[in-house]
Amino acid sequence: MTAPGPVRVELGDRSYDVAIGPGAADAAVARAAELAARTVAVLADERVAALHAGGVIAGIRARGKADLLVALPAGEPAKTPAVVEDACRRLAAAGFERGDVVLGLGGGAATDVAGFTASIYHRGVPVVHLPTTLLAQVDASVGGKTGVDLPEGKNLVGTFHQPAHVGCDPGFLRTLPPRDFRAGLAEVVKAAWIADPDLLARLEREAPWDAAHPGLADVIRRAVEIKAAVVSADEEESGLRATLNFGHTLGHAIESTCDGRWQHGECVALGMVGAVHLSTRAGWCGADALDRMVAILERLELPVRDPGLDPVAVLERTRADKKRVGGRIRWQLTRGPGSVSFAADLPEGAPRAAVDYLRR
Amino acid sequence: MTAPGPVRVELGDRSYDVAIGPGAADAAVARAAELAARTVAVLADERVAALHAGGVIAGIRARGKADLLVALPAGEPAKTPAVVEDACRRLAAAGFERGDVVLGLGGGAATDVAGFTASIYHRGVPVVHLPTTLLAQVDASVGGKTGVDLPEGKNLVGTFHQPAHVGCDPGFLRTLPPRDFRAGLAEVVKAAWIADPDLLARLEREAPWDAAHPGLADVIRRAVEIKAAVVSADEEESGLRATLNFGHTLGHAIESTCDGRWQHGECVALGMVGAVHLSTRAGWCGADALDRMVAILERLELPVRDPGLDPVAVLERTRADKKRVGGRIRWQLTRGPGSVSFAADLPEGAPRAAVDYLRR
Repeated sequence: MTAPGPVRVELGDRSYDVAIGPGAADAAVARAAELAARTVAVLADERVAALHAGGVIAGIRARGKADLLVALPAGEPAKTPAVVEDACRRLAAAGFERGDVVLGLGGGAATDVAGFTASIYHRGVPVVHLPTTLLAQVDASVGGKTGVDLPEGKNLVGTFHQPAHVGCDPGFLRTLPPRDFRAGLAEVVKAAWIADPDLLARLEREAPWDAAHPGLADVIRRAVEIKAAVVSADEEESGLRATLNFGHTLGHAIESTCDGRWQHGECVALGMVGAVHLSTRAGWCGADALDRMVAILERLELPVRDPGLDPVAVLERTRADKKRVGGRIRWQLTRGPGSVSFAADLPEGAPRAAVDYLRR
Repeated sequence: MTAPGPVRVELGDRSYDVAIGPGAADAAVARAAELAARTVAVLADERVAALHAGGVIAGIRARGKADLLVALPAGEPAKTPAVVEDACRRLAAAGFERGDVVLGLGGGAATDVAGFTASIYHRGVPVVHLPTTLLAQVDASVGGKTGVDLPEGKNLVGTFHQPAHVGCDPGFLRTLPPRDFRAGLAEVVKAAWIADPDLLARLEREAPWDAAHPGLADVIRRAVEIKAAVVSADEEESGLRATLNFGHTLGHAIESTCDGRWQHGECVALGMVGAVHLSTRAGWCGADALDRMVAILERLELPVRDPGLDPVAVLERTRADKKRVGGRIRWQLTRGPGSVSFAADLPEGAPRAAVDYLRR
């Protein structure tokens, strides 16, 4: 049996492949080197760079191209305008040009910063992503969203900039802390809940999951396929793509107000519990859906409650969500696994009840 | 005789109109208010705001929309990443949303900053431009280029973000200092030299030009038409659009190294003289073309020489130009009025000779 080919993200003349499996890292380095006139600039989370930049840079040199390593602060602290400005200045100082290529190496924060930097440097240069966390492999590096945070909220500044290629190599996940691995599963649950009840059942049935699970590449592939299909149908999030924000309105608000207690994926887990609770209050689904969501997340050792949440701060933050239009929050509700869509109106007090449920 | 309609910039689903003439300002405000869900944020050069923001804001309110004034530093100092970050933070703090609209008011620096801010805030919101200088009316606000400077060079960071509408109201030009007005004529000369020898002859014949010249709206329109035609044919500057950089490789280098002695348009004038000199050295045209360029610019009271140029610094800067590909500078040379194109190779020493000619 041959390994399945890459997942194609269909976006007209900006279509690209997401290669998944052992060897995907080297193939992505090869693609970046092939695209670059002279130089591949590796924008890498400094912690990830210590583990993996050596191999990437060797791969660039082996293909006859120059390399430039720009280390980014580890993790979420990289997501600031100042880090992007500094990266642009370092590219400029090194003589990096429009015909050259940025390679993003690290988790979602690093690929967000690398993608944003590539989208604005010289008004846009190509970027190839090499995500090294499960979260980034299944979510952050597919779809072309880039962004950084402001003190006023997460991802308030960014662009849509489709990568030229993405390589999801499960080999990177072996160096990932177990908690980070589990946090990534939250986005797999989200993809499954939106679009694939069979995947949801498999996640539950074959738990626990870790980097050595033989089904892991399959599950990554399926999550990437789901996201790719949605993004292809709706690149700039006018409708269908908004379903990918399931759990994220509350999730982002929790992330902004929890003082770093939770990782992004963990906040999405809490946010999905909240979103299903809202859905029950809105009459979209019954208590069985809420029980199911909680049971799956618990099985994957993801958080389903946090008595420490500050309800006033969380609700205040949901009102700063950038998906608002005309002052209304664009909640994504569910009728159960396989069905998520936009709700224009919610019963009075439902968001507060959902946060109170999370604080149980 | 009815006034001619707007110039249409054809870019598929991002096509837009540039309205030119008396009344264009109010029409642009109306368009911004019509597009906005709730709020029009006016990003304005603070000096221009003191003169014209009152009328713009009254126009927004008269159409039932909320207004938000974000004052930008006057002139070129606005073009920094810090100013853009600050503008984004002010939009976020005011609850500005994805369905709202940015209106850029001021010269090319203000419309560049407003356009860049609009392109990255919430990953992109619409922008309407109301350029108040001749330079911005004929050049900066058509084509969708946005950008800010880095210490390493001008416009190194930015995006392509097409406006939803542009209003070029000659009324604004009456408050423009005469030197600024003349500097704007340099971009009109550039457009005419690239594509319209008749316009070139008219500029010469009907000089001097000022804000009261009865042919001014015509000339603005013709320059906008030329730029619109080029941009429609080549949005992202792969080939034809690069002709719009005629005079700009040296011009930008002069601008970066002249310690503020010259305005952008004046640097373009000097850069065009240098580009024609280069063209003679490359055998593309004769001394008559150089004489013609110098004569026209002198007639329009634009600079054609600067003994104070630092040749080493200027040439060093041309090598940092972002139009380089594969380490080569993409010089735009001319065979005479109506003919500008890319030159792959130049005779050894030709750039230095051109700068020395400017220092005569």
